[in-house]
Amino acid sequence: GEIFDKEIYQDNSIAGVVTGLAWTSVGGEILFVEASLSKGKGKLTLSGQLGEVMKESAVTALSYLKSKAEKMGVDYRIFDNYDLHVHVPAGAVPKDGPSAGITMLTAMASIFTQRKVKSKVAMTGEITLRGKVMPVGGIKEKILAAKRAGIKEIILCEKNKRDIEEIDEEYIKGVTFHFVDKVEEVLDIALLKSKVEEPMIFTFPKENREEASN
Amino acid sequence: GEIFDKEIYQDNSIAGVVTGLAWTSVGGEILFVEASLSKGKGKLTLSGQLGEVMKESAVTALSYLKSKAEKMGVDYRIFDNYDLHVHVPAGAVPKDGPSAGITMLTAMASIFTQRKVKSKVAMTGEITLRGKVMPVGGIKEKILAAKRAGIKEIILCEKNKRDIEEIDEEYIKGVTFHFVDKVEEVLDIALLKSKVEEPMIFTFPKENREEASN
Amino acid sequence: GEIFDKEIYQDNSIAGVVTGLAWTSVGGEILFVEASLSKGKGKLTLSGQLGEVMKESAVTALSYLKSKAEKMGVDYRIFDNYDLHVHVPAGAVPKDGPSAGITMLTAMASIFTQRKVKSKVAMTGEITLRGKVMPVGGIKEKILAAKRAGIKEIILCEKNKRDIEEIDEEYIKGVTFHFVDKVEEVLDIALLKSKVEEPMIFTFPKENREEASN
Amino acid sequence: GEIFDKEIYQDNSIAGVVTGLAWTSVGGEILFVEASLSKGKGKLTLSGQLGEVMKESAVTALSYLKSKAEKMGVDYRIFDNYDLHVHVPAGAVPKDGPSAGITMLTAMASIFTQRKVKSKVAMTGEITLRGKVMPVGGIKEKILAAKRAGIKEIILCEKNKRDIEEIDEEYIKGVTFHFVDKVEEVLDIALLKSKVEEPMIFTFPKENREEASN
Amino acid sequence: GEIFDKEIYQDNSIAGVVTGLAWTSVGGEILFVEASLSKGKGKLTLSGQLGEVMKESAVTALSYLKSKAEKMGVDYRIFDNYDLHVHVPAGAVPKDGPSAGITMLTAMASIFTQRKVKSKVAMTGEITLRGKVMPVGGIKEKILAAKRAGIKEIILCEKNKRDIEEIDEEYIKGVTFHFVDKVEEVLDIALLKSKVEEPMIFTFPKENREEASN
Amino acid sequence: GEIFDKEIYQDNSIAGVVTGLAWTSVGGEILFVEASLSKGKGKLTLSGQLGEVMKESAVTALSYLKSKAEKMGVDYRIFDNYDLHVHVPAGAVPKDGPSAGITMLTAMASIFTQRKVKSKVAMTGEITLRGKVMPVGGIKEKILAAKRAGIKEIILCEKNKRDIEEIDEEYIKGVTFHFVDKVEEVLDIALLKSKVEEPMIFTFPKENREEASN
Ligand SMILES: [Ca+2]
Ligand SMILES: [Ca+2]
Ligand SMILES: [Ca+2]
Ligand SMILES: [Ca+2]
Ligand SMILES: [Ca+2]
Ligand SMILES: [Ca+2]
Ligand SMILES: [Ca+2]
Ligand SMILES: [Ca+2]
Ligand SMILES: [Ca+2]
Ligand SMILES: [Ca+2]
Ligand SMILES: [Ca+2]
Ligand SMILES: [Ca+2]
Repeated sequence: GEIFDKEIYQDNSIAGVVTGLAWTSVGGEILFVEASLSKGKGKLTLSGQLGEVMKESAVTALSYLKSKAEKMGVDYRIFDNYDLHVHVPAGAVPKDGPSAGITMLTAMASIFTQRKVKSKVAMTGEITLRGKVMPVGGIKEKILAAKRAGIKEIILCEKNKRDIEEIDEEYIKGVTFHFVDKVEEVLDIALLKSKVEEPMIFTFPKENREEASN
Repeated sequence: GEIFDKEIYQDNSIAGVVTGLAWTSVGGEILFVEASLSKGKGKLTLSGQLGEVMKESAVTALSYLKSKAEKMGVDYRIFDNYDLHVHVPAGAVPKDGPSAGITMLTAMASIFTQRKVKSKVAMTGEITLRGKVMPVGGIKEKILAAKRAGIKEIILCEKNKRDIEEIDEEYIKGVTFHFVDKVEEVLDIALLKSKVEEPMIFTFPKENREEASN
Repeated sequence: GEIFDKEIYQDNSIAGVVTGLAWTSVGGEILFVEASLSKGKGKLTLSGQLGEVMKESAVTALSYLKSKAEKMGVDYRIFDNYDLHVHVPAGAVPKDGPSAGITMLTAMASIFTQRKVKSKVAMTGEITLRGKVMPVGGIKEKILAAKRAGIKEIILCEKNKRDIEEIDEEYIKGVTFHFVDKVEEVLDIALLKSKVEEPMIFTFPKENREEASN
Repeated sequence: GEIFDKEIYQDNSIAGVVTGLAWTSVGGEILFVEASLSKGKGKLTLSGQLGEVMKESAVTALSYLKSKAEKMGVDYRIFDNYDLHVHVPAGAVPKDGPSAGITMLTAMASIFTQRKVKSKVAMTGEITLRGKVMPVGGIKEKILAAKRAGIKEIILCEKNKRDIEEIDEEYIKGVTFHFVDKVEEVLDIALLKSKVEEPMIFTFPKENREEASN
Repeated sequence: GEIFDKEIYQDNSIAGVVTGLAWTSVGGEILFVEASLSKGKGKLTLSGQLGEVMKESAVTALSYLKSKAEKMGVDYRIFDNYDLHVHVPAGAVPKDGPSAGITMLTAMASIFTQRKVKSKVAMTGEITLRGKVMPVGGIKEKILAAKRAGIKEIILCEKNKRDIEEIDEEYIKGVTFHFVDKVEEVLDIALLKSKVEEPMIFTFPKENREEASN
Repeated sequence: GEIFDKEIYQDNSIAGVVTGLAWTSVGGEILFVEASLSKGKGKLTLSGQLGEVMKESAVTALSYLKSKAEKMGVDYRIFDNYDLHVHVPAGAVPKDGPSAGITMLTAMASIFTQRKVKSKVAMTGEITLRGKVMPVGGIKEKILAAKRAGIKEIILCEKNKRDIEEIDEEYIKGVTFHFVDKVEEVLDIALLKSKVEEPMIFTFPKENREEASN
C-alpha cells in the first residue's frame, strides 16, 4: 500500500494523534487520526474524505465524550468555547466504515484532556453511543500491517479475539493484544496519566448557568 | 444474521438504551436504540445510517415527548439546554422504516426522565404524533429473533395480535406479549419507576419566560 | 387499501387531529393530519414522507393562519414561541398533492386555538394564500372511502359539486356535503366553539414590540 | 386549459393579489400571484412549485422594492419585522420563467403599501433589478386568455407592442393595452391610491439605527 | 442574438449598472450587470441564472472591494448593514464563466461609492483576489457586438491586446481600447468622480468596535 | 499549458499571495494561492473551482494556524473578527488534490501575520492537521514548470527527494531545493521577517473572555 503514511508515529509530545488500522483492497494499513482544538463555538470539522459512516462515528464519539466529561475531568465549557477538528490523512484517500470509532474517540479524549497517547499502540473497533466496543472486519490484514509498522500493542474488541486465534503465531510475536468490551478500557490503556508538555490552557467567557435539582 | 449485535442487553443501569426488533432480508434481529444527552442548545443528532422514514420517526417521538413533558415530569428546560443524540448500532448498516418508533420514544423517555428501562423487554411499532401505536410488518421473524436472544416480554400494537396468533405456540413459550394502542401504555410497561443509579443532574441558565393566560 | 389507518377517528378530546381524504392508485382512503405544538422558536416540522407540493400546502396554511391570527383570537406570540409539528401517518407512505390543504389548515387552526374538531367530519381541497378553496381530483373514490369509514359530513370545494352529482345517490346516503369557496367556511363547519378538555396554556417571555401607526 | 383558476378575480378588497398571464403548452392562462405578510424577521417564502427563474424574479422584485421603499412610502422596518410569502396557485402545477416579474412586483407593492389593486387588470413582463420592464413570449395566447377571462386592461412591455399588432383586432376589442418601459409605470397603472378596507397596521420593536452622512 | 437586451444603456443617473460583454454560441452580446443595496445584514444575493464560476467571480469581486474599502472611501459599515444584490438580465438565460469579473466589480464599486458609471463603456475580463485582471476568450465577437450596440470605449486585459490586433481595423473604427493589468485601472476609467443625483444616504446602528494596534 | 497564468509573481508587496505548483493532464504549471482578509465574523470563503480535497486542505491549514496562533504572534481575535477568502486563479479551471496544502497554509500565514512572502519561491506538498508535510505526485513536471517560470527556490516534502534525484541535473541548475518534514520549516523558508508596506491594522470589538486554569 502506498496511500497511507507507513511510518509509526512515535512522537507523543502532541496531544490528539492516535494510530488506527485500516483495511483496504490492497491489504491492511496503519492510519492516523489527528484531533485539534481552537477557540470557537463548539463546531466540529471533519476532513480527510471521510464517508458518512465514519463521520457518524466521529459524531458518536464526541457525544459519548460530552456525556462523560465530568468523569474524565474535562471542563464542560471547552465543548462550547472551542472548535474541534478531526482529520485523517492522507487527504485525498476516501475512507469509510465504523472501525475507526475507538481511534477517533481516543484522539478526542487526548486533545480534550491534553493527556499523552501511549506510543506504539494501535487500535481498531466500532463504538456505540453507550460506550460499547463492537467487532470489526479485516483483523488479520490490520494486525500484519501494524506489526510491519513497529506497533507493539493493539486494542481490539473482545469479540475479535477469534480472528487473532486464526493468525499464525510467528506473525504476531512481540505484539501485545488488549481485548476490550468498553470504551473506558480503551482509554485506560491508550491514554497516559501525564499531560503533554506545554498543554493548551483553556480560557472561557463568563457563564451564567445555574444549578437546578431534578 | 451477522450484522446486528445478538446479545440481549441486560444492564439497565444506564438510561436511554432500549431493545427494538428489526426485520431484514435475512430474518428478524434485535437492535438497540441508544439515546444520550449532553449540555447544548436543543439540537437533535441521529446516527447509525438511518433512512428518511426512521429519522422522521425520531423527530415525531421527540415532538410527542415535548408535548407531554409536564405530564411525564420532565423539566421543559432540558429540551432547550441539552442536545439529544440517538444512535442505532451497527453503525455501518443502513436502517429504515417506521417500526422503531416506539423504541425510539422509550429510549428518549428514559434518558429525559433518567428512569430505568425494564430488562429483557423488546418492542416494535410505529408511533404517530398524537401518541397512537400503529401495526408494523415482519412480526413473526421479529418474535423468533427476540426469543432466540432471550427476550421475555414483547410490546406490539393491538392490531399486530393476529400476526402472533399465526405463530406455532411452542415457538413463543415463555414470552409475554403486551398489545397496546397508545404510547402511554408502552411507557407504563417499559419504563420502571426507579431512576438509574447516578442519574444525570440537569442544570439550566436563568430563564425569563412569563406566564400568560390564554 | 392496507396502507392507511381505516378507523374513523372519533375522539376529539385532543386538539389538532383532522380527517382528510386521499386518492391512491388503489382507490380512496381516509388519512389523518396531526398537529402538535411545543415550546420553541417558531420552527415548522413536517413529517410523514410528504412531497414538495404537500409541504408547500402546509407552509401556505400556516402563512394564512398567521395573517388571520387576530381575527381568530390567536395570540400572535404563539407563532414565535412555540414549534409546530405536522405529521401525516402512515409514516412510511409517500404522500403528495395539494388536496390536504384545508385539512392541514384545520388541524393547525385547532391546535393554535385549542378548539375541538367536529367528529365524523372529513374534508379535501386545495387552499390558496388568500384563503380560497380550490377543487381537487379523485372525489368519487374519496367519498366512497369516507362513507365506508363512517364519516357523516364531508367538506368540498364548491367547484367539486359536479363530481358529487355523478355519484349514484345510494352510495352517499346519510352523508352531508358542505360545498365551500373560502377557508373561513371550512373552519366554521369543522371547528367547534368549545376548547378541548385540559387545553394547553401558552406562556411567553417578555416582549418589547411597540405599536407604530402606518 | 384546466389547470389554472379561470375566473377573473374581482374582489380587490384584499391587498396583494394580482392577475398575471401564463403561457403553457395548451395555450394562454390567467394566473394569480398572492402575497401575504405576517410578523416575523424578514423571511421570504415562495410556493406554488416555482422554478429557479421564477424564484429569482421574486427575489429581484423584492430587492427593487426595498431599494425604493422610501419613495413608495413604505416604512423600511416592515422588511425586517415581517415575513413575506408569495404563492402562485394552482399549487401542484410547476411554473417557471421570468414573465411573472412585474406581477410579483405589483403583488408585493400592494401588500407592503396596503393599496388596492385595480380590478380587471392583468400583466406580463420580466423585471430587472434597476426597474426596467423587458419583453416576454407567448403574448398572443396570453392576450386571448385574458380576454376570455374578462380582463379589461393589460400591461405589457413596450417591446411587446409588435406582438399585439399581429393579433386580429376583433379579438382584442374592448381591451386597453398599456405599454411600459419601467416598473414605476406598472405600479402607476395597477395600484390604486386608496388602501384596502381594514389595512394591516404594522408594529415594530424599538430600533437603534442612527443617521450618518456619507 | 435575441436573448440579451441589445440597446446600449446610456442613462448613468443610476449607480450600479455596468455594461459587460458576453460570448454565446451565436456570437457576441452586450449584457448588463446590475447591483443594488438595501438595508440588511451584509447578505449577498446573485440572480440571473448565474453558473458557479460566475458566482465565484462576484464573491471574489466583493472580497476585493472589502479589502480596499478604506482606499476607495467606502465606509466599512455599509458591508455589514446593507444587503447587496447583483442581477444579470435576461433572467431566463443561463450565464457562466469568469469574464464578467471586472464588470461585476465595477458595478459593485459604483453602488458602494454611489459614483456614476461612464456612459458608452463596456468591459470584459477576469479578476483575481489580489486585483489582477486576466485575459478572457471570445474577444473578437464581443468587440463586434459592442460596436454594433454603440459602445465607444472598451476595457480589456493587457494580454488580450493581441486578439484586437487580429481584427480588421475598419470594424473597430471609433472605438477606444483600454488595456489594463489591474483592477484599479478599470475603476479609474469606468467610474466618474461625481456621484449620481440623489445618492443613497447610508445609515448605521451604533457600533462598538475598538482600535487595537497589531 | 494555456490555462494558468505563467508569469512568475515577483511583487511581494502584498501579503497573502504564494506560488504553488500544479500537475495537469498537459504537464506542470505554476499557480497562485491568494488570501485576503476583511472585517467580518470568521467566515472562510474558498473560490477558484476547488474540489473537495482541496477545500479540505484549506480548512485543515486554517485549523493548524489557529492552533498555533499564539506561537506565530497572531492575535487570536483576528480569526473571529475578520473573514478569510482564499482564491486560486484561473477562476474557470477546476482544481483538486491535496498538494496545495502547504501553499495555502503559507498564504494564510502571510495574510494573518502581514509578513512578506519570499519572492521566486514555489512549493508543493500536503499538510496534515498536526503540521506534518506529506509527499505529493507529479514532482518532475512541476519542477520543470517552476524552472521555466523563473522560480529560484522550491519547497518539497523530504519524501519527495527521490523524485528530484531522477531528474537530469541540467534541467534544475540554478534552483535551490528545500526538503522539509514539518510545516514550521515551510514557514521559516517562505515567510520573511519583515511585514509588507502598509500592513493591515486589525481592530476588534471589546471582548469578555476570561482566563481559567485547567
Ligand atoms: Ca467526498
Ligand atoms: Ca472497517
Ligand atoms: Ca446514508
Ligand atoms: Ca418496519
Ligand atoms: Ca422522501
Ligand atoms: Ca390530490
Ligand atoms: Ca419542485
Ligand atoms: Ca414567460
Ligand atoms: Ca440554474
Ligand atoms: Ca468568458
Ligand atoms: Ca464546481
Ligand atoms: Ca496533487
